[in-house]
Amino acid sequence: MKLATLADGSRDGQLAVVSREGRQAVLATRIAGTLQRALDDWPFYAPQLAELYDTLNAGAARHAFAFDTKRCMAPLPRAHQWADGSAYVNHVELVRRARNAVMPDSFWQDPLIYQGGSDDFIGPCEDIVLLYEAWGIDFEGEVAVVVDDVPMGTTPEAAMEHIVLLMLVNDVSLRNLIPDELAKGFGFFQGKSATSFSPLAVTPDELGAAWHDGRVHLPLCVKWNGVRVGQPNAGVDMVFNFPRLIAHVTKTRNARAGSIIGSGTISNKAANDDASIGYACIAEKRCIETIADGKPHTSFMKFGDTIELEMFDSAGQSIFGAISQRVVKGVPGRRVAKESR
Amino acid sequence: MKLATLADGSRDGQLAVVSREGRQAVLATRIAGTLQRALDDWPFYAPQLAELYDTLNAGAARHAFAFDTKRCMAPLPRAHQWADGSAYVNHVELVRRARNAVMPDSFWQDPLIYQGGSDDFIGPCEDIVLLYEAWGIDFEGEVAVVVDDVPMGTTPEAAMEHIVLLMLVNDVSLRNLIPDELAKGFGFFQGKSATSFSPLAVTPDELGAAWHDGRVHLPLCVKWNGVRVGQPNAGVDMVFNFPRLIAHVTKTRNARAGSIIGSGTISNKAANDDASIGYACIAEKRCIETIADGKPHTSFMKFGDTIELEMFDSAGQSIFGAISQRVVKGVPGRRVAKESR
Repeated sequence: MKLATLADGSRDGQLAVVSREGRQAVLATRIAGTLQRALDDWPFYAPQLAELYDTLNAGAARHAFAFDTKRCMAPLPRAHQWADGSAYVNHVELVRRARNAVMPDSFWQDPLIYQGGSDDFIGPCEDIVLLYEAWGIDFEGEVAVVVDDVPMGTTPEAAMEHIVLLMLVNDVSLRNLIPDELAKGFGFFQGKSATSFSPLAVTPDELGAAWHDGRVHLPLCVKWNGVRVGQPNAGVDMVFNFPRLIAHVTKTRNARAGSIIGSGTISNKAANDDASIGYACIAEKRCIETIADGKPHTSFMKFGDTIELEMFDSAGQSIFGAISQRVVKGVPGRRVAKESR
Repeated sequence: MKLATLADGSRDGQLAVVSREGRQAVLATRIAGTLQRALDDWPFYAPQLAELYDTLNAGAARHAFAFDTKRCMAPLPRAHQWADGSAYVNHVELVRRARNAVMPDSFWQDPLIYQGGSDDFIGPCEDIVLLYEAWGIDFEGEVAVVVDDVPMGTTPEAAMEHIVLLMLVNDVSLRNLIPDELAKGFGFFQGKSATSFSPLAVTPDELGAAWHDGRVHLPLCVKWNGVRVGQPNAGVDMVFNFPRLIAHVTKTRNARAGSIIGSGTISNKAANDDASIGYACIAEKRCIETIADGKPHTSFMKFGDTIELEMFDSAGQSIFGAISQRVVKGVPGRRVAKESR
């Protein structure tokens, strides 16, 4: 099943079911008004949403309409938890090598996860509004899962069954703020601005055989200013699979329904030698350049730049719809102009 | 005005207005079902809630009932953002001195703030359920503010008007997990288990003259196992006031309505010499012991221990009601037993 949230002037939007090939949609608000509401009692709502999905795919849904990703908010326009891992340890190792630092061996056994802000997500086609290019604006292409209630002390084995939806992520990062911020010791805050999500949140069965071992075994297509710069495979070199990340998140506390857990930037080791694999964040490209030439050549994003992230199944069908955004300059202190209630 | 959220089996509870002296309550659900709903359109709902508050204080509210903090969830049982500062720099300096580390001078100019988990808050009289005493279970007594929509790039001067409510916090911390976690560089995650809040969220005017300069100028009473161990003044040595913390939070992103921003453990410099001031977290007591004697004497909390946090106005009236909790041992992987829808 594929779900989307349509903008309607409210903070949480309207829940819609979208057809498998992404062309038709139907409001699901007679079942559950919002995706969070559905997640709050997933065993009750999911079967009803699945039935509507089947009807829509059969071309028999009443009041179906053309689906337009430009009308989409993030599937969860705001959430109660956004925990982002760094499961592709190759990425972490490259970053360290580029600054001549050694990565602790424990990073191969113990996941890195940071707590992100979840109060103000960006829709898939909304602008990324930031104040200064000097912050070092970067994209990060990722996969994320949404879970139901996961109790404290859940094992990786038990965590798998708590994964109810998958999405794509653009974890926008401000590279030039991060070194000083991490040096303070409390983790990311200002270095991670608002995060973007794909138009569609899909149940794992939509990925077929590409979803196994708690990983998505498909390449992520990354286009920066219309040019393909990366197609790393999300199933390759993901050292910690999603169940392992969920177990980490719930070691000392519950994760409640609607929590989002991200993979971290997708990064394939083979890309270090095979340029055709490319990158899912500029920082990684710059690290490879620094290791090779002593300094980076590729600049971070400029105002006006665009970024597209999309994932296709083996038949060439877009699974999550495209994240397609432009970076634009905002005005400090300007009233939050989006929906207000 | 004073607001509380009563448990009713739902995830977000029922909004209630509570009388000034904390003895009577009346459901506010005919105005707004939940506190988050009220915060989503505060200019619309706040005047209606204030009117009900006046009626209740005048003894004229229909269907008023005796207020019982044991029925309370956290005012926001789950939120979209919990950002916790470390504004009492004395605390940070003590922690560093105890391990013979130097605190960077920049810590006096640039606030430390970490992103906390906000999906599963603990009610004021609910148990603190954790799995192992060996984690080093500690309380942290704090003050927090709740804001309305705050745009990116808000100045400290402009931030003041965005503060709509105040609460007390017990930011439960797992001290023995923190050193290894912070060494990894991504900040707190497992070291900060679920956070607790006071029964009442109150508007700043309820504090009268004690609320000025963006600080709460009152002592926080801390009782551990029934013994008063601290009464540090929240208005003393708070290097960064709440508007300054909010400006930090919104440097690179908006903070949306209902975001909670905490002060960090209250800590007064004078406590280093005057034991009667005491402490709002055990870690601080242990630091003072370590600096004096080379090692700590006070142990962290045991299962069965209790913790009470409360703040009184100059007339001896409890402002926020008491956080009054017991630490109990949980079972790994046991189904989240609270409300399910």
